[in-house]
Amino acid sequence: MLSDIHNPTDLKKLAPEQLPALAEEIRSLMIPVVTQNGGHLASSLGAVELIIALHYIFNAPEDRIVFDVGHQAYAHKILTGRADTFNTIRLEGGLSGFLRCDESPYDTFITGHSSTSISAALGLAVGRDLLAQNHCVVAVLGDGALTGGMAMEALNNAGALQTNLLVVYNDNRMSISPNVGALSQYLSLKMTTPEHLLLREKVKGMLEKIMPLKGNRLIRRFQRAEEAIKGFLISPTSFLAAWGFKYLGPIDGHDLKRLVEAFKQVKNFKRPVLLHVMTTKGKGFAPAESDPQTFHGVGRNKIAAIGSTESLEPATAAAPQKTYTDVFGEFIVRAAERNPKIAVITPAMSQGTGLDCFFKRYPDRAFDVGIAEQHAVTLAAGLAASGLKPVAAIYSTFLQRAFDQLFHDVALQNLPVILAVDRAGLVGEDGPTHHGGLDLSFLRLLPNFTVMAPKDEHELSDMLAFALTLDGPVAIRYPRGPITGQERLSSQPIEKGRAELLRAGSDLTIAAIGQTVWPAMQAAKKLEAQGLSIGVLNMRFVKPLDTGLLTEVAQKTDHILTAEENTLAGGLFGAVAETIVKLNRPISVKGLGLGDTPVQHATQRSQRALTGLDAKGIELAAASFFPNRGLKSPSLQGPLF
Amino acid sequence: MLSDIHNPTDLKKLAPEQLPALAEEIRSLMIPVVTQNGGHLASSLGAVELIIALHYIFNAPEDRIVFDVGHQAYAHKILTGRADTFNTIRLEGGLSGFLRCDESPYDTFITGHSSTSISAALGLAVGRDLLAQNHCVVAVLGDGALTGGMAMEALNNAGALQTNLLVVYNDNRMSISPNVGALSQYLSLKMTTPEHLLLREKVKGMLEKIMPLKGNRLIRRFQRAEEAIKGFLISPTSFLAAWGFKYLGPIDGHDLKRLVEAFKQVKNFKRPVLLHVMTTKGKGFAPAESDPQTFHGVGRNKIAAIGSTESLEPATAAAPQKTYTDVFGEFIVRAAERNPKIAVITPAMSQGTGLDCFFKRYPDRAFDVGIAEQHAVTLAAGLAASGLKPVAAIYSTFLQRAFDQLFHDVALQNLPVILAVDRAGLVGEDGPTHHGGLDLSFLRLLPNFTVMAPKDEHELSDMLAFALTLDGPVAIRYPRGPITGQERLSSQPIEKGRAELLRAGSDLTIAAIGQTVWPAMQAAKKLEAQGLSIGVLNMRFVKPLDTGLLTEVAQKTDHILTAEENTLAGGLFGAVAETIVKLNRPISVKGLGLGDTPVQHATQRSQRALTGLDAKGIELAAASFFPNRGLKSPSLQGPLF
Repeated sequence: MLSDIHNPTDLKKLAPEQLPALAEEIRSLMIPVVTQNGGHLASSLGAVELIIALHYIFNAPEDRIVFDVGHQAYAHKILTGRADTFNTIRLEGGLSGFLRCDESPYDTFITGHSSTSISAALGLAVGRDLLAQNHCVVAVLGDGALTGGMAMEALNNAGALQTNLLVVYNDNRMSISPNVGALSQYLSLKMTTPEHLLLREKVKGMLEKIMPLKGNRLIRRFQRAEEAIKGFLISPTSFLAAWGFKYLGPIDGHDLKRLVEAFKQVKNFKRPVLLHVMTTKGKGFAPAESDPQTFHGVGRNKIAAIGSTESLEPATAAAPQKTYTDVFGEFIVRAAERNPKIAVITPAMSQGTGLDCFFKRYPDRAFDVGIAEQHAVTLAAGLAASGLKPVAAIYSTFLQRAFDQLFHDVALQNLPVILAVDRAGLVGEDGPTHHGGLDLSFLRLLPNFTVMAPKDEHELSDMLAFALTLDGPVAIRYPRGPITGQERLSSQPIEKGRAELLRAGSDLTIAAIGQTVWPAMQAAKKLEAQGLSIGVLNMRFVKPLDTGLLTEVAQKTDHILTAEENTLAGGLFGAVAETIVKLNRPISVKGLGLGDTPVQHATQRSQRALTGLDAKGIELAAASFFPNRGLKSPSLQGPLF
Repeated sequence: MLSDIHNPTDLKKLAPEQLPALAEEIRSLMIPVVTQNGGHLASSLGAVELIIALHYIFNAPEDRIVFDVGHQAYAHKILTGRADTFNTIRLEGGLSGFLRCDESPYDTFITGHSSTSISAALGLAVGRDLLAQNHCVVAVLGDGALTGGMAMEALNNAGALQTNLLVVYNDNRMSISPNVGALSQYLSLKMTTPEHLLLREKVKGMLEKIMPLKGNRLIRRFQRAEEAIKGFLISPTSFLAAWGFKYLGPIDGHDLKRLVEAFKQVKNFKRPVLLHVMTTKGKGFAPAESDPQTFHGVGRNKIAAIGSTESLEPATAAAPQKTYTDVFGEFIVRAAERNPKIAVITPAMSQGTGLDCFFKRYPDRAFDVGIAEQHAVTLAAGLAASGLKPVAAIYSTFLQRAFDQLFHDVALQNLPVILAVDRAGLVGEDGPTHHGGLDLSFLRLLPNFTVMAPKDEHELSDMLAFALTLDGPVAIRYPRGPITGQERLSSQPIEKGRAELLRAGSDLTIAAIGQTVWPAMQAAKKLEAQGLSIGVLNMRFVKPLDTGLLTEVAQKTDHILTAEENTLAGGLFGAVAETIVKLNRPISVKGLGLGDTPVQHATQRSQRALTGLDAKGIELAAASFFPNRGLKSPSLQGPLF
């Protein structure tokens, strides 16, 4: 059937009875592609029927459907003209793994970060009303997304505005356990409040009065009714209705008949409706159903054989390479053994940030707060104020959510919070929404902060150890992916605000940081062969910047190339420029880094090549300072050129 | 009594019967001081009894009390050793208007921005548990603060962790109306869901079965009981219990006896408790009670006579000066008359951002979303995606909360959202937590954004008109306070990325932006009298920066001084430095702006003098480029020197 479906109109030609078979066909397309290309398999498998039913009943793109995060929407891509190209998902030049307005008119709103869909959909709904249009607006979000404060802000506002808006709450029970914990205690608490006890007595008295003889039996009946009410109210979903939404559900999210009926029904409501749909993460693929966490996001080629899906095991293809994340995770467990004051915090990323082992070993000192970066950072500030050494591990791209908390709660009070900023720089297949390309710039704005990036895995451990000795806030940013495998240099120990001169030069100095340091060393060696004397300065810190050593080398070489996996604006390049312009000397500075043009999804290797942030790119950029030395002319496309 | 109370221990010596008189004494101290110095009068008046009772029962500073926002906590300052100096509140060198750990050990945690207290208190509580300590931790927050997503994230997490934590919910019914609206519909909705109807039928059947004769009467009883349950559940407060808190209240927040009893009671609970306290904003001061919104924050000397408090009228002393906020408010109403696509959004600041008139004239196009900056920005993105022209008016300091949404939802999609960034730069008496000192730097990181600042009120109108013609995101930042009163220059029209050369010079060019432009002109004229030829470049844009004109003037004068009310790191200075270092010429650049050292509360005039951001400071900074010209030597303390 799929070959005949080029858009949702084609889908609508199918009879309802044909839809389950279509779901199977979609899964048959999805599983081998995602197991090969990598991606968010479990979420997308769980939402197949939901998405079929949505497109069967609603008229996209006129009706506007906003998928939260977007990684559950592969079936949406397949049904909206992208079945033929689905095998290119997350590959360079292929389909994005998330929703992209520039990829398809059916992708209503860019998504990637969590908990934004209700705000966006509410804006679209209110806009529709003001422009006297008549289409439907639908937000689809998972239970995890609802732990984000922004989603709650939006629900609150949407409930009050009472416009025509459908929120589909895709509940696959994979939300963060603390959340469920708090909700499930809801009614059991309230039922013991003084007001409730009074009410209970009152009703009991009422019943006793009219039914003196049969009172006891009636009271038991009343208690049973109360239990039933309690049982109903105890579900997390009725809690959602608190925000002024009409609540419908829960319904089985794999029962296409019920889904189609439900969407038909809610389409006619002219107010905020929350439809609760229960789904199974990984549905239809046994390995993913039984281990949805591992299959939440799978790496490229992490699953060995395709053919026999039943026997698939993740990550059997090759021994996985050790990552920076692993180095952090191992370090922090060792440190916690010696230092009982260390506590860790993660916003729903205990696995992704390498903290799994810590959570097992020290559950009392490990806090998964849900998708709630703002709270995560201020919780860390509170822990620091209590005398602990909190370490908050957050992906760079998500740390953007907590910028104000970093400033207001951590920096202004100079609290010793350690930020382990994972996935800094280019992140590969997740693309523009997920790069950690701004952190050096925004962290540098924060008073009292120390901001570092290690050149390799050894320096990451050293910096973490150093951070534990500091008495103020520290951020250490490190890349996604495998460690360098370099041998440990007998380099100078980490000192606050001190860079490390790895190599002296007389023609040009490359001031590099983090991921770019070793490639800069390679580039320097290559250029040496062409007669250039290139120094390499491992900056280590962007704040405080080693202006002393920088000035010294700048005055020796008069040419500086900065290299960073961060936007040039206000990052290492910005910091170096701010230093050099004060010297009043004709020193030429160029910067190699990220610009405003989004770096599209591809492998990290490819992204680094494209932006000139690998050894070859650095070599070409360095050579470009010397156009008259007979070096091969650089022809690189990148922010520098 | 107050003269004998130097700390909470002294307070505890009083008999409970004496406390109401103490409350009156505190009010008698508070009202004249705050009406003279300015400050948050209404909130602080409402919390007097609450704070007395807290310090009467809890043992601060060992017990840790965190006040959300902090502007309700004047009584706390008075009771913790600061009664003698209370008359210096918000004055330069005097007490801060907010809580400051460096001011008193009783100020547990810095506050100023909303909705942070539960996260901070939870951190303190968890830290206490891990360190095997035994004190109490209390967060005090208002109903407005609860619309912030961060507070909801924290409640959710705290409910799950089930540690000993008291949240005092100070409900003065001044929260944003939409919030109350959504909540009050809670149960009426749920009671009509299919599940509930089913339950109702089931219970009815049960009753009918056992009581065939008297069934009808019983059913009526049951319905009445149901109504009672509904009535109880409908209150916003029981809704809060959803997060796993034991809920107590509501109690009268001006009844000291009940407050003291309640705190005694909850002190012994070893779990999260939410105590609901009802207070009256402005309590004890008739003008503030009857108009709490106007008295929420009052300006310095905005209230005429002191003596007879009953007859006080706000703002009768002198006709208030017109502010940038007024200019924005008037412009946007006029623009909306002609353009039906304009809609405005504010996070709980319709009065503060000058949108009152817009809300009255165009209520359908005006959205107050509560204290919810993240949602505000993405809602604006959704409105823009629907085809409207949304204008979000947000204070610079609070816009920090929405950094990720600006990047992810607005910038990446290049949506035509207009940000009116009020209170940019130095804000005066509110101090370090409230300066808008980072926006030029963080807005410059956002792809597709145009970022401007007007030199005066005329340019603000011109820039707003220009922003409406653009098809991508724009931010215009402007200062708190009165307009310049300058006559309109017949200057060049606003063009994207074009600076305006106000004055040519041959010795030095001052590249100024926003608030600093006219002072730079004054400085240039003063220096002209001493024989220096100083150019002034009104940059207008930090993004895109006019690198062409900048390069041209830089090559003419070889000396550049930048001036901005923003941090030097990555702001205008950063942007200029990034341009100049590429020129490979001995051009000397210095920057005048804010640094990492917090600028303490004082008048804006005084803060500008301190940081060198007035005409005199700019003159001295410019003169410092020419130490050998026999100019008077500058001796200014500031980030530059």
